[in-house]
Amino acid sequence: MFDQLRFDYLSCAGHPHLHTPNIDALAARGLRFTRAYVQSPVCGASRMSTYTGRYTSSHGAQWNGYPLRVGEMTLGDHLRPLGMGCWLVGKTHMRADVEGMKRLGLSPDSVIGARQAECGFDIWCRDDGLWSAGPDGCYDPRPSPYEAYLKSRGYEGDTPWADYANAALEDGRTVSGWFLMNARKPANIREEDSETPWLTGEAIRFIEQARSPWCAHVSYIKPHWPYIVPAPYHAMFGADQVVPPRRSEAERADPHPIYAAFMDTPVARALSRDEVREQVIPAYMGLIRQADDQMGRLFAFLEDSGRMEDTMIVITSDHGDYLGDHWLGEKDLFHEPSVKVPLIIYDPSPEADASRGTSCDALVESIDLAATFIETAGGKVPGHVVEGHTLLPFLRGERPDDWREVAISEYDYSMLPICERLGLAPRDARLFMVAGRRWKYVHAEGGFRPMLFDLENDPDELHDLGASPDHSEVIAQMHAHLCSWARRMAQRVTMSDARIIAARGASDRKGILIGAASPDDVAPELAAFYQGKARKDRSGRG
Amino acid sequence: MFDQLRFDYLSCAGHPHLHTPNIDALAARGLRFTRAYVQSPVCGASRMSTYTGRYTSSHGAQWNGYPLRVGEMTLGDHLRPLGMGCWLVGKTHMRADVEGMKRLGLSPDSVIGARQAECGFDIWCRDDGLWSAGPDGCYDPRPSPYEAYLKSRGYEGDTPWADYANAALEDGRTVSGWFLMNARKPANIREEDSETPWLTGEAIRFIEQARSPWCAHVSYIKPHWPYIVPAPYHAMFGADQVVPPRRSEAERADPHPIYAAFMDTPVARALSRDEVREQVIPAYMGLIRQADDQMGRLFAFLEDSGRMEDTMIVITSDHGDYLGDHWLGEKDLFHEPSVKVPLIIYDPSPEADASRGTSCDALVESIDLAATFIETAGGKVPGHVVEGHTLLPFLRGERPDDWREVAISEYDYSMLPICERLGLAPRDARLFMVAGRRWKYVHAEGGFRPMLFDLENDPDELHDLGASPDHSEVIAQMHAHLCSWARRMAQRVTMSDARIIAARGASDRKGILIGAASPDDVAPELAAFYQGKARKDRSGRG
Repeated sequence: MFDQLRFDYLSCAGHPHLHTPNIDALAARGLRFTRAYVQSPVCGASRMSTYTGRYTSSHGAQWNGYPLRVGEMTLGDHLRPLGMGCWLVGKTHMRADVEGMKRLGLSPDSVIGARQAECGFDIWCRDDGLWSAGPDGCYDPRPSPYEAYLKSRGYEGDTPWADYANAALEDGRTVSGWFLMNARKPANIREEDSETPWLTGEAIRFIEQARSPWCAHVSYIKPHWPYIVPAPYHAMFGADQVVPPRRSEAERADPHPIYAAFMDTPVARALSRDEVREQVIPAYMGLIRQADDQMGRLFAFLEDSGRMEDTMIVITSDHGDYLGDHWLGEKDLFHEPSVKVPLIIYDPSPEADASRGTSCDALVESIDLAATFIETAGGKVPGHVVEGHTLLPFLRGERPDDWREVAISEYDYSMLPICERLGLAPRDARLFMVAGRRWKYVHAEGGFRPMLFDLENDPDELHDLGASPDHSEVIAQMHAHLCSWARRMAQRVTMSDARIIAARGASDRKGILIGAASPDDVAPELAAFYQGKARKDRSGRG
Repeated sequence: MFDQLRFDYLSCAGHPHLHTPNIDALAARGLRFTRAYVQSPVCGASRMSTYTGRYTSSHGAQWNGYPLRVGEMTLGDHLRPLGMGCWLVGKTHMRADVEGMKRLGLSPDSVIGARQAECGFDIWCRDDGLWSAGPDGCYDPRPSPYEAYLKSRGYEGDTPWADYANAALEDGRTVSGWFLMNARKPANIREEDSETPWLTGEAIRFIEQARSPWCAHVSYIKPHWPYIVPAPYHAMFGADQVVPPRRSEAERADPHPIYAAFMDTPVARALSRDEVREQVIPAYMGLIRQADDQMGRLFAFLEDSGRMEDTMIVITSDHGDYLGDHWLGEKDLFHEPSVKVPLIIYDPSPEADASRGTSCDALVESIDLAATFIETAGGKVPGHVVEGHTLLPFLRGERPDDWREVAISEYDYSMLPICERLGLAPRDARLFMVAGRRWKYVHAEGGFRPMLFDLENDPDELHDLGASPDHSEVIAQMHAHLCSWARRMAQRVTMSDARIIAARGASDRKGILIGAASPDDVAPELAAFYQGKARKDRSGRG
């Protein structure tokens, strides 16, 4: 999993200037999904959905830093009983439910407690990126394995992540990759020591030592900001290879109030400036090109070690990046560059030959991966817990008739200052996307009108039809999809359908006789059990 | 809390023949709610909502015997940190999430584990009723404190609950209270040894020994079936005091398919027969009359011990009983006799003088009790966990302007054999009631039409308008209420609104600089932290 990798910044997805031969090669040996949506266009919430196989409003960790409630089942809980380990190599953005763990007396030092605190993973190494940030103290107070590595390699100072991996040098002094105008300068670090090659090395080290079946979440922080990359990648792309922004002046005329508020954030204003895009996007492309080279390194290792024959490989991202499209930066909203992600699955098994080298435009969601992995590990998907659906049929070249008609994504933006400006209570700062084959509908809590896009006639989503009277019927249909999804069975997690069916009528068998007027109405053994025992009069009247 | 006590089987609620002077006296000193709805018309689900303050689709324990997921917060979790104990004296219908506890390594023998296994209560005594049932073994395998008591009082045999407390004697042999035709016979037990007086004694013993502030869930199994009561209560009421059934032939002409299926169950068919009602209802009335006498005994003890001055008393039930109304028995559906319950709150504090002896027709839900108790214990209701609202304003004689417009109740009937007959998958065997001031709307999953009742012009709910074209607008309005409720914020349980608001912008303060084009765009200390450190060229190019 990459972080903030757009669906269309790969050559196999049609990027005109960014060549990604290694990822393309995997796509040529696997299946590429062209309509894969994340459950929320923000790191933490999206990842918790991928790790639980559940929608963000089902697991409740709806934004970065919202703790995942103790006891919520994760991939590790599903895979370990099937004999498959579940390991983390990189980023999760997990925040432990410290209060919940305390309430249940779970210590983070215990095996169970540690897994609860790390959303079910066993840790090979955890690196959420964003180390040694800020005068106000670290973003992440834990010791950084990456910074420890940099120090071991002789990078001086206490904050090498900020001072080398994400900074350039000018006249012997640091200039930070945090500042977009520095994006095209070379990071002051040997390429092999930068974040992406370092994590690839950790992944290889993990695989080398692994003895029993494993699922490894190899989770890169890049091409996520700070946008800066070491030589030679910093200079591979120029302003002439920056694709034009997907936006129109019409979008700024009478926009939806929430869209307007997001267009007015500093990051949106910055990325709306062409000179900023011309700095940022070449660096973003360089980071992806470096990532592709590291995929080549990883795949070569898998080939040489024979693992390519028995390892399923999935390439995806936790969300995209607007990069100035729609006058926005970052992610947050539901336009395709933000909510749609790359999804390539390589399955070495012969059953998957049917789909090798093809693409599929079915509506898939990141929660489908948990279901896919459980089935791949030989398990049956527990539909009362995991809300995603297995993708294995698509890999076998099948197209399930009963596949979902709409993909859902949610966004809880109550942590953002803009909801003050919009006058929203924390529980009303929520958006729901319902994407069908043709229409993309966005419902906003808090009394706003919806947004609506016609993906068939307006693939670039430049015309919001949410206020169009001509589309009231479509809006009603899409809203009905939202309502039926909102009523879904999401929390009956302690009872499987099979267990329910098996338990029907059990109470009768245990002697609970509801509505029997006389002994003739029940089985003879029950009548005999209850009637006819010789007893004394104990009513106190005898 | 009584079990299966109808809202209208109290003289203070207008019953013409059943006199309940002690409960009436409490109502005269407290506030009586006339539109109190349970979150599900079935014991287990309703109780788990009362104990968690959350809707059944939020906590997931949607039917009898569905385990309450480990970690779900209960009254005990909320009250103990406020210095108030939370104790069980009687029934809960709780099933522990054994798998979840195992996954988290929680032993039922530990204090934390025991509370998890008992939905947060500390146990004074637990009695779910239904002991020593059936040749197929016990309904409840645990040792029964009530049967131990009966044996200590000299009742012979292994199954005294079934053979004495819930059976009569005929020619020296048992005839069972399970069989409705035996309902009017006297139970073969001394009245003071029967279930209701025994539990009242346990409540008094608990209160006598309590030293620190407590919340006690005094939870009776009666007047729940088996419908049988000892002398003299068995003979207090006759067929002439049985109120006529609230039903009409019109209900049997073209009924809603789900209603039709419930009308065709054995208990519904039995209670539709007048001769059965004439046996059952006098016994049911006798059980309630006995319960009222025991309330008198409990209140007298509280007066004598001074506890009446510092104890809030709530009288309610977990659901009602059709008793043949609408051609139905038991509960399950959403007509008033099933889903509406008595709710009387006596608050000794002077603030409550404003409402003493009055009644209130606001739409209240059983989940409101948890919020009320938390506030009474001096806490602030955690709105991100508890979905109910405090009732204290009503006790102070206020009428909150922003009170709920609709009450919600849900029913998961996937455990009932009738869903096979209806051809329903377990996840589609679900009903939602939305009750407003005038309209009661019932949505059914599985593609059925809705049900609709006009409580203003058809208070007895004899005319289902769910198929009426004249009411499509009302139906759309009520459905919209359902949808907005279904999208509620129910699982963001690890983040309070206050914590969210306080955390806004925290990432910037920690040095996460999103969208800063240059150092001029951020605070000087952040710019200084990231820029201008003297560093060597470590790019490998120097």
